[in-house]
Amino acid sequence: MTIDPDSIKYNSDGLVPAIVQAADTKAVLMMAWMSAETLQLSLNEGRTVFWSRSRQEIWRKGETSGEQQIIREAYYDCDGDTLLFVVDQHGDGACHTGNYSCFFRSFND
Amino acid sequence: MTIDPDSIKYNSDGLVPAIVQAADTKAVLMMAWMSAETLQLSLNEGRTVFWSRSRQEIWRKGETSGEQQIIREAYYDCDGDTLLFVVDQHGDGACHTGNYSCFFRSFND
Repeated sequence: MTIDPDSIKYNSDGLVPAIVQAADTKAVLMMAWMSAETLQLSLNEGRTVFWSRSRQEIWRKGETSGEQQIIREAYYDCDGDTLLFVVDQHGDGACHTGNYSCFFRSFND
Repeated sequence: MTIDPDSIKYNSDGLVPAIVQAADTKAVLMMAWMSAETLQLSLNEGRTVFWSRSRQEIWRKGETSGEQQIIREAYYDCDGDTLLFVVDQHGDGACHTGNYSCFFRSFND
């Protein structure tokens, strides 16, 4: 599908934050950034594709680790400046640390 | 509680994105931004307090609308650059449009 370019507001770096939630457990797995190009790639390919700010390159999630995220639902928020993807998380989890979710550290710990 | 200042990475505006998830339904409700000050206020007061980028002021969520978010769990991610709050959402919902979640628009619509 083609995105209405007016529907999404990118920041000054041309990026928009993308929250990823597991379809089965409903856990919030991670947040990463998408460019207009990687958002379109995500919708076209049916899996999450991000923009790596550290490497400054397209990052197909799980391409090397096998921990792909297959998109079930894709939303944008009321302001059009945040995305939400509900996914089937493949492999052990979303986090490069080996944890299921990137949010494994609590302020209460 | 006092936050270790090294545990959270703020962006060039001194802000960090904060995802809010409902404790009961597990729905992702919204994403907004916190400064170091409003993060500390959130943890101290037990409810979400954001930094309004449009108004450039502290924004106690629900202070005028009654739709407060009482914090049940508070996490930071592996990179320390995104926060996740699991909350009891008061009132009808989180979104200023009257919707329960800010993510009510789908790319599939």
